[in-house]
Amino acid sequence: MICKENTPLSVKNVDIHDGFFTPIQDLVRHVVIPYQEKILHDEIPGVEKSHAIENFEIAAGDKQGEFYGMVFQDSDLAKWLEAVAYSLAVEPDAELEARADALIDLVGRAQQEDGYLNTYFTVKEPERRWTNLMECHELYCAGHMIEAAVAYYECTGKDKLLKITCRMADHIDNRFGPGKVRGIPGHEEIELALLRLYSVTKEERYLKLAKYFIDERGQQPDYFVEEEKQNGGWKYFGMSTKKPEYMQNQAPVREQTTVEGHSVRAVYLLTGMADLAARTNDQELFDACDRLWDNMVEKRMYLTAGIGSTRDGEAFTIDYDLPNDTIYAETCASVGLCFFANQMLQMKPSAKYADIMERAFYNGTISGMQLDGKRFFYVNPLEVNPGVSGKLFGYEHVLPKRPGWYACACCPPNLARMVGSLASYAWAENETTIYSHLFVGGTAKFQTAGGVTVQLTSNYPWDGNLTYKVTPATEGSTFTLAVRIPGWCKQYTLRVNGVEVDASSMMKDGYAHITRAWKAEDTVYLSMEMPVEKVYANTAVRADAGCVALMRGPLVYAFESADNGEQLQALRIPRESVGRVLPFEKDLLNGIVPIEIDGIRLVSSGELYSTEPPKEEKVVLRAIPYYTWGNRSGSIAAIESKGLEIDEGTLSMAFNADDLDDEGAGQMRVWMLEK
Amino acid sequence: MICKENTPLSVKNVDIHDGFFTPIQDLVRHVVIPYQEKILHDEIPGVEKSHAIENFEIAAGDKQGEFYGMVFQDSDLAKWLEAVAYSLAVEPDAELEARADALIDLVGRAQQEDGYLNTYFTVKEPERRWTNLMECHELYCAGHMIEAAVAYYECTGKDKLLKITCRMADHIDNRFGPGKVRGIPGHEEIELALLRLYSVTKEERYLKLAKYFIDERGQQPDYFVEEEKQNGGWKYFGMSTKKPEYMQNQAPVREQTTVEGHSVRAVYLLTGMADLAARTNDQELFDACDRLWDNMVEKRMYLTAGIGSTRDGEAFTIDYDLPNDTIYAETCASVGLCFFANQMLQMKPSAKYADIMERAFYNGTISGMQLDGKRFFYVNPLEVNPGVSGKLFGYEHVLPKRPGWYACACCPPNLARMVGSLASYAWAENETTIYSHLFVGGTAKFQTAGGVTVQLTSNYPWDGNLTYKVTPATEGSTFTLAVRIPGWCKQYTLRVNGVEVDASSMMKDGYAHITRAWKAEDTVYLSMEMPVEKVYANTAVRADAGCVALMRGPLVYAFESADNGEQLQALRIPRESVGRVLPFEKDLLNGIVPIEIDGIRLVSSGELYSTEPPKEEKVVLRAIPYYTWGNRSGSIAAIESKGLEIDEGTLSMAFNADDLDDEGAGQMRVWMLEK
Repeated sequence: MICKENTPLSVKNVDIHDGFFTPIQDLVRHVVIPYQEKILHDEIPGVEKSHAIENFEIAAGDKQGEFYGMVFQDSDLAKWLEAVAYSLAVEPDAELEARADALIDLVGRAQQEDGYLNTYFTVKEPERRWTNLMECHELYCAGHMIEAAVAYYECTGKDKLLKITCRMADHIDNRFGPGKVRGIPGHEEIELALLRLYSVTKEERYLKLAKYFIDERGQQPDYFVEEEKQNGGWKYFGMSTKKPEYMQNQAPVREQTTVEGHSVRAVYLLTGMADLAARTNDQELFDACDRLWDNMVEKRMYLTAGIGSTRDGEAFTIDYDLPNDTIYAETCASVGLCFFANQMLQMKPSAKYADIMERAFYNGTISGMQLDGKRFFYVNPLEVNPGVSGKLFGYEHVLPKRPGWYACACCPPNLARMVGSLASYAWAENETTIYSHLFVGGTAKFQTAGGVTVQLTSNYPWDGNLTYKVTPATEGSTFTLAVRIPGWCKQYTLRVNGVEVDASSMMKDGYAHITRAWKAEDTVYLSMEMPVEKVYANTAVRADAGCVALMRGPLVYAFESADNGEQLQALRIPRESVGRVLPFEKDLLNGIVPIEIDGIRLVSSGELYSTEPPKEEKVVLRAIPYYTWGNRSGSIAAIESKGLEIDEGTLSMAFNADDLDDEGAGQMRVWMLEK
Repeated sequence: MICKENTPLSVKNVDIHDGFFTPIQDLVRHVVIPYQEKILHDEIPGVEKSHAIENFEIAAGDKQGEFYGMVFQDSDLAKWLEAVAYSLAVEPDAELEARADALIDLVGRAQQEDGYLNTYFTVKEPERRWTNLMECHELYCAGHMIEAAVAYYECTGKDKLLKITCRMADHIDNRFGPGKVRGIPGHEEIELALLRLYSVTKEERYLKLAKYFIDERGQQPDYFVEEEKQNGGWKYFGMSTKKPEYMQNQAPVREQTTVEGHSVRAVYLLTGMADLAARTNDQELFDACDRLWDNMVEKRMYLTAGIGSTRDGEAFTIDYDLPNDTIYAETCASVGLCFFANQMLQMKPSAKYADIMERAFYNGTISGMQLDGKRFFYVNPLEVNPGVSGKLFGYEHVLPKRPGWYACACCPPNLARMVGSLASYAWAENETTIYSHLFVGGTAKFQTAGGVTVQLTSNYPWDGNLTYKVTPATEGSTFTLAVRIPGWCKQYTLRVNGVEVDASSMMKDGYAHITRAWKAEDTVYLSMEMPVEKVYANTAVRADAGCVALMRGPLVYAFESADNGEQLQALRIPRESVGRVLPFEKDLLNGIVPIEIDGIRLVSSGELYSTEPPKEEKVVLRAIPYYTWGNRSGSIAAIESKGLEIDEGTLSMAFNADDLDDEGAGQMRVWMLEK
């Protein structure tokens, strides 16, 4: 029987000092969160108006006015509050906290007498509350506010927002469930949120309500078809009920065998399912999660841990259909994949999940953010071709440069909260075991065996040498440090206090379990060889046929025209070429280890078609970590030169997808043709 | 100064006996034309109603009723009449001719007092005549009726339709032109048609009107913007004036440097431009045509002579953007490319044009028709992948099997008229020279040098041996037989009456000019080696990067899963492999020469991504001529088994694009990855 085996470490118990992630967390704190705050307050001229806070002010009766924005605009404030919570846990900031508290007060004032909380319906269409769950995101917004409340409570100890959201959750619970009104959300989120609320309140009704929403999905008659009959066909977006798989509603979730539809919705649902399975020891539900995990990861995931193969519904398509240049791979979807992975790890600490979570953390999630924290990708392609990408039919959504802000601003705050809560992905614990899932430097405090402090120092992912300094509260207490040996690692040595140990005898599910009576400053040293690896896709993946990609450690590498000139498709990597690891360049792309490999450039005659094979020129190819692509072309300077309003001082960027121009953008490819 | 140097041979002067094209012409005569006739009469149950003839009956006052169908529905009848004309020239059929005569009478009755002829506006919106040239195809339909009239006159000698269309052309001429009302058509066709009308009537006003429509295009202020103001923004399709290049209206045609927009419109315009240049000795206009030809053929054309890279506007995109699986490459566009090429050949008999025309005739045009003449492709892809093609977003238009009929039924009759008038593409003449552009067997009669009969016998394109038997009307008269030596041909010998001659000394613009005093039954024997050729695309073409295609003679070859199993993308052709020509198989695909080549199949581990390179298995790959692809899967039998209504006796096929299911369809690729 499956059960909750371990718990992620609270971000409050970790002090991160990591050469790789600390600068990203700092960006989130000092750039992304302040910028988003200004957006929420509509203080940035020229940028798509958010109106999110003003909507709350109107709903609260503080102001007169009309609702403005997306029907799910409330969630932007919620996600920002959640990111702020994690940020405060990492680095206190009294002013920021005061401003967040004030906004929480505002949220409280916007809540209705009966606990209902949603500014769209409160301000604009109160009579239509709960009549269009398919499209209108009421439960989705509720879920995000709950997540913010739980995080804020955990990180600051303040429970005002928690109480607000409990009243809201009670309102929802009073309405929906067995013997009450039937309903499921069009966009999942409430399920995982209610389980988080349960985790801090221990109120069974939240658990039961989450279970209801999960198990009601996919039941017949189709709820959304019924709802459409009841609301007289009122549509907000004009969505059809004809594609139930878009909302993972094609079958009861326990019976689903392939991961379908909108990829963010799918992983949010799966996150809730996995959490529920853990909390209720539900083997069947775990098995469904695991089956869908396998389908996703073994047949429908990009090398970067991107998911979603088509913009049509921002969705999965079919097995092995993974086009690189018409990809969707939304940042939020990879973030959601990490949520799901981390839930699975709580039941089954296996590298099967953690390897993919690591892949997402170092590649397809953080690629969404420009290195300066100021611009964001929604879609994270594995190939861009200026002149085509972002321009031609079918490629309009695949931008070759990160734009500043989107009207649908889901990805930046999602990334912010993930990065902010990094510690809880890196570490987990139970009474006897400390799990090191991700290798994030810093000091972590565990309750395991009466208390343990672990300090991890590394230069990861630039090299594979990790030093764990383990200090138990009680000298000589026995417990296990379980260190993941990543799937990418083929050669490693493990030393305890300088003495090499036979790690193979300690291996279970991809983790080396080091069990001993620990003494202060015992040292575990893991040294992993980190050569350049060539990766091949299954031949069923048409888009990667004949291609090879380079990885080193957890990092997927990309080739840009900035390093390799024009026509990346004319470059070949011979089978026998071996990638060379170059020295760390601290001034390049915020500090990276580039890769070099001998290649061939094909040079064809001028003709469109010729019986003369192209000539071959020897070249040295250079690759950079995928997450850093698109940071050298289309710089802020290039945008300024186009007369758009950029004010670095106030982080003002009058730039969004509609304005985007590919001037200065270059080609990029992850998959290179082999020779 | 450019001028009209030669004239295509009338179809009436050629008796085709060609192993390759005679069966196709027979199909057109015995299957396509009768089927289309039934469609026009709405006699085929379950098929999209045409209503084309009923529209004329209503316009004529013979019947009461409403207009039904596309705004350009009249052109279906016109194209059918044109195809019938050519068919009658090739093989008299009194009953068919009587039925066509009756329909021509009907067209005459539908014509208005003032010469106006268009059933949509006559029946439905008479007050809106000529107010929406951008969308409403009045000039396009007029042009097709003129083409039918000219063909019918040339092939049967009957001038009734010609007189009708002259009255219509006069009506148009009375309205449009310098000093009259301004106007240009949204869809070009009237230009080339007026020039054809001029060629038989010698009425200068038709030439001048054609010139007006051609030179007015692209002038400022944009006619369509002005028209939109004048008609109060009335829209038929909702087209925007914001993309003038869709209609080749981005600049005056003489100044255009790249071929843009809707590919059929573009080649129809160019056909008119080239004809006008020839008739008016207009070097500047010829140069514009030649510049656009070069851009199209050297940067925007598929190997099969398909044109149109995107379904978005059925259009050209940018140089070297030639995706194989999201291609448009409409059958009509390749047919129009042949029209254009043949016009250019009249000014400059050069293999530059004829080679591409041949490429189109043997590949991207006839691929549109199923080998049984009963089903048709609109879009001719170079790669299909069942499960994706015709199904997923961006690929919906790329069907993996030919459907039976389209609501927009432009391609089948266009193909029918091209195949019917094949003779006039194959041969051209002037007073001193006979041009053999395409190698189509049969006997042709020329006026050159007082009269010459040439009999061509060959087994082309299955081998490269051609025998011309030349018999002058006057024994010993001196003239030139100019035989194209195709660009694909690297080795050949030329014999005159059995004696090898030095062809290189006779070469001009890709034609061997054999000038002599000819005697009865003089024989020219051209023997061209026809090995399998490997073809490479320019490295700028991303879609073909790392790939090779096979050709033999004029034929492009394709690989189907029916011959090569699943996962065509996993098959590689080593650089050193040499294609083998297999014996002609008369029972395979109506008789073809298959090709075999040694290849490799990559077999990967079951993993999605692996550092293990796929294993290599030696395989023998088999290719078939591209035009025959899609004829072995999804057979009529397979459709019948799905319960759709198929009546082979009455050629009834209850099947169109909407119903299409890819069951039984296999993969197909032209470009195979190299090893």
